[in-house]
Amino acid sequence: MPHNVPDFSCPDRNRRVILSERPTGVPQPGHFSLDEVARPEASDGEILVRNVYLSVDPAQRGWASDVANYSEPVPLGGPMRALAVAQVIASRAEGFSEGDFVYGFFGWQDYAAVAPSAVLHRCTQDLPLEAFASLCGINGVTAYLGLTTLGRPAEGDTLVVSTAAGSVGSFVGQIGKGLGCRTIGLTGSDDKVATCRDTFGYDVAINYKTADLDSAVRSAAPGGVNVYFDNTGGAILDTVLRQMAVGGRIVQCGTAANQVWSPPPTGPRNEREIMTRRLIWSGFVIFDHLNAYARACDDLTAMHADGRLTFATDMKQGIDTAPGAIADLYAGRNSGKSLIYIG
Amino acid sequence: MPHNVPDFSCPDRNRRVILSERPTGVPQPGHFSLDEVARPEASDGEILVRNVYLSVDPAQRGWASDVANYSEPVPLGGPMRALAVAQVIASRAEGFSEGDFVYGFFGWQDYAAVAPSAVLHRCTQDLPLEAFASLCGINGVTAYLGLTTLGRPAEGDTLVVSTAAGSVGSFVGQIGKGLGCRTIGLTGSDDKVATCRDTFGYDVAINYKTADLDSAVRSAAPGGVNVYFDNTGGAILDTVLRQMAVGGRIVQCGTAANQVWSPPPTGPRNEREIMTRRLIWSGFVIFDHLNAYARACDDLTAMHADGRLTFATDMKQGIDTAPGAIADLYAGRNSGKSLIYIG
Repeated sequence: MPHNVPDFSCPDRNRRVILSERPTGVPQPGHFSLDEVARPEASDGEILVRNVYLSVDPAQRGWASDVANYSEPVPLGGPMRALAVAQVIASRAEGFSEGDFVYGFFGWQDYAAVAPSAVLHRCTQDLPLEAFASLCGINGVTAYLGLTTLGRPAEGDTLVVSTAAGSVGSFVGQIGKGLGCRTIGLTGSDDKVATCRDTFGYDVAINYKTADLDSAVRSAAPGGVNVYFDNTGGAILDTVLRQMAVGGRIVQCGTAANQVWSPPPTGPRNEREIMTRRLIWSGFVIFDHLNAYARACDDLTAMHADGRLTFATDMKQGIDTAPGAIADLYAGRNSGKSLIYIG
Repeated sequence: MPHNVPDFSCPDRNRRVILSERPTGVPQPGHFSLDEVARPEASDGEILVRNVYLSVDPAQRGWASDVANYSEPVPLGGPMRALAVAQVIASRAEGFSEGDFVYGFFGWQDYAAVAPSAVLHRCTQDLPLEAFASLCGINGVTAYLGLTTLGRPAEGDTLVVSTAAGSVGSFVGQIGKGLGCRTIGLTGSDDKVATCRDTFGYDVAINYKTADLDSAVRSAAPGGVNVYFDNTGGAILDTVLRQMAVGGRIVQCGTAANQVWSPPPTGPRNEREIMTRRLIWSGFVIFDHLNAYARACDDLTAMHADGRLTFATDMKQGIDTAPGAIADLYAGRNSGKSLIYIG
């Protein structure tokens, strides 16, 4: 479908959201500042893109941290690392043309001059533009590939999902349901419990803040949990891990429950549970799976077209909403994939 | 090779080691008592076996416990569950003949009348009889199948093994070395460090009780640990887990470091390490892999015949040594696979 993108009022200026202080936990508005510099130019081999939708992702907490992680920390004084859906406005790189829509690491700013390696995906599927940062963003693709490659649910399996109404979890629940699982969603408010049941088709949804989680999971999964797709870690993980069925798989996709990891928080030891239940506990990071990204987007687009997969977007307006957006995410104040429209 | 087995002095009496008190941690001599009853007879469909070598295995701690586990707890007042190498002295089951040697769940006693399902392995390979409770016992087969199916080492990988001189670990180190790994053994005394290097061929051996384990592993594995075969859990696991390479595999085969698991002890939370390092942490229990047992014994026998695999046996004499044998094992007082000759 054709995409309409509005014009910026000052097309030669680049507004940026700068990481100005190093957070120890979840980045708060005070860790960022806004500035404005001249629009960059594409060097040889680069493309110049204009961002349309800035993405707000849980992984940004780790990117902003200087604790050892799977990526280098964002330099202080530079624009915050972020995914975005953008349009190519000048290309000096082979294979990209002016007008192409792309999704990749373009940062929280209006413009970016980047090498083609910054592009995760070319937005070619027949979808609304914002879907490339949700259904076909790292959250939808993480849900699909994390569940199918590491969770490996079989028909009839019981699948538990934490942050079940979230930008990843909501896809995991729906995809698992489509694969024939009984789906149990854990979420943090009664509104989200209703969304889990009514919108995302969970068989059971549990408010972990008000329920006795241990007995609620036990009664929802009397035969044990075959696949646990975990986005939180912490006490929720401790509870579900102790109700895994023999041979169960835990996909560790996020650790939202603990906001500070240095020094590491403590919890009950799990090695004996892993051994006696013969669990397989694996970590998933989407950037290991980029060669499967385009195929995953084709599959997700087909599931969406069939009506098997719905998604929600929590759209903020304007680049000045970015500094508070990660904190909102970790506080659960969003409903659906958090995006910022900066047109 | 032909096996000589001695005669019992009272062939119509069955001496038994009874579990008389329920242990909360490692079974101590006081948890057992010895009794003597009439020799059992084989019912229809059963075999009557006479034990020759009783096996002492770390897993017996879990079998004696009433904490949820992968097996039913041993009933109080009954003979202690144990593996043994035995000879069939009467058969009323198809496929078994008087004189056959077998390895299976025959208990800490002189005789057992059991169904064929109690037999794990028929002792057909060309090996000394005690090897069927060590090289081809659950420890050797666990090492081989745990390492190859869950650890999946590639040539050039760095492999760390805890209880590296033990009945499982010593095989893991040697098999890993044969597969082209750089092998690092963790063990609890300087004597065992020497055994690890001189007998089991580890590239590096570390006394975790006297070394600064974190820096010793870091200097032995500067590129990180690709495979960790863990028999201990606890603080050793915490240290090695934080030095795993991206994509590393942890095989949880034992949890000897913590002797009491109810209530669960605490330790540093690992979910963020699992995610950011994309680890695969799996539990291994040999009884899930019995269909591969005979093939594994053929492979192990061939490696032993080629001189690629050596093994040590710590042989106690007499059934009255059994009550203290599990405690000795957990205290590290054995050197090699702990067996009891009851001829």
